[in-house]
Amino acid sequence: MDSSTLEETTPALASVARDAIPDIVIGRLPVYLRTLKLLAAEGHEVASSQELGERLGISSAQIRKDLSHFGEFGKQGTGYNVAYLCKQLEKILKVDCIWPVVLVGAGYLGHALAAYNGFENRGFRIVAAFDNDPKKIGLRLADSIEIEPDSNIAANVAKHKCQIAIMAVPAEVAQGVADMLIEAGIKGILCYAPITLNVPKDIRVEYIDPVIQIQHMTFYLDKGCLE
Amino acid sequence: MDSSTLEETTPALASVARDAIPDIVIGRLPVYLRTLKLLAAEGHEVASSQELGERLGISSAQIRKDLSHFGEFGKQGTGYNVAYLCKQLEKILKVDCIWPVVLVGAGYLGHALAAYNGFENRGFRIVAAFDNDPKKIGLRLADSIEIEPDSNIAANVAKHKCQIAIMAVPAEVAQGVADMLIEAGIKGILCYAPITLNVPKDIRVEYIDPVIQIQHMTFYLDKGCLE
Repeated sequence: MDSSTLEETTPALASVARDAIPDIVIGRLPVYLRTLKLLAAEGHEVASSQELGERLGISSAQIRKDLSHFGEFGKQGTGYNVAYLCKQLEKILKVDCIWPVVLVGAGYLGHALAAYNGFENRGFRIVAAFDNDPKKIGLRLADSIEIEPDSNIAANVAKHKCQIAIMAVPAEVAQGVADMLIEAGIKGILCYAPITLNVPKDIRVEYIDPVIQIQHMTFYLDKGCLE
Repeated sequence: MDSSTLEETTPALASVARDAIPDIVIGRLPVYLRTLKLLAAEGHEVASSQELGERLGISSAQIRKDLSHFGEFGKQGTGYNVAYLCKQLEKILKVDCIWPVVLVGAGYLGHALAAYNGFENRGFRIVAAFDNDPKKIGLRLADSIEIEPDSNIAANVAKHKCQIAIMAVPAEVAQGVADMLIEAGIKGILCYAPITLNVPKDIRVEYIDPVIQIQHMTFYLDKGCLE
């Protein structure tokens, strides 16, 4: 799908500069998509912004406001057509296809990611995996992806025209790996290492740090500690 | 540390109803804390909201506004005392101690989490691990935590007075595991399964779903797909 098709299917988008839409709104779209797909799987053909909001703990007004950036997806009173809104969100997020992804780090986390079956049906496929441990080279992740040395990153990123990388490496080596990936042409990095990467402005980095999210919870809990 | 101590050290907090502070603000505090600890590790004794903002891609005004909910942490022009602000944020988030955490799911992800060395120094320790696979019972995660059957969850949560659980289980069993954890007294769940859990209002759930964050990136990338 090229952008012209996108504009045909979601007219409003044509008139909206993408960076004019708040990033926080973009960040919620994948959550809406996940929930809509769940509703579809449960057999719901229509869903109101109230129903969506209840599932997500977000106000229905917020959901309507977020979606209004991209066009009119629901008729007043009738709610959203679940299948149609899924398709539109997939087009807006550009995941109505499968993106090649490279994985760096073949430890437990790398194995877990390679074995994760939630990528392909949501727009992504790990096409190559790398590790700097000579003992792992040649072994396979999830019985499929062969582990290659980091020195093969550039060639693979080029071969698969990869723009996205997942980094499942220790913090100590993360910046070096990120530099290698960016040099190879990667534009978006999902980083599991608990550090903040130093990258050029045109490179997008998302972090997965479980402690950040647990610390978000403890604020609301009654303190109960071991020490 | 009980709340009275907290109020002594961060006076403003005493006058602020915690649920009056936007959750989105609370969600940023752990990110500020992580970055401040990094600055401290790099030897910085003082940091301005500008420096923090540049590291985080957040405006300095936003950072000052967020922190102002909890008191006055910086002097105009002199910036924040990094060590002091770290301590205060740890108290506000209640992570100036170590919380016991139970882990459910001893697959690759469970192993990765048990081997992760970033918990203890940030307020958490996995004290027990569970799996429903009889072949795994009795084995150890990260050479330390013995894998116990799910049927031991309730007893362990009670014994360790655990309020926090990490769920590293497949989506199909996630709701059942969550029900078990909540029944046992867990108040906060970090869920790696790609589903939305149905939980009582007083239970906090945070999700880690790599696809949500990758789909957030693809919006900004030039479409490049395999299929």
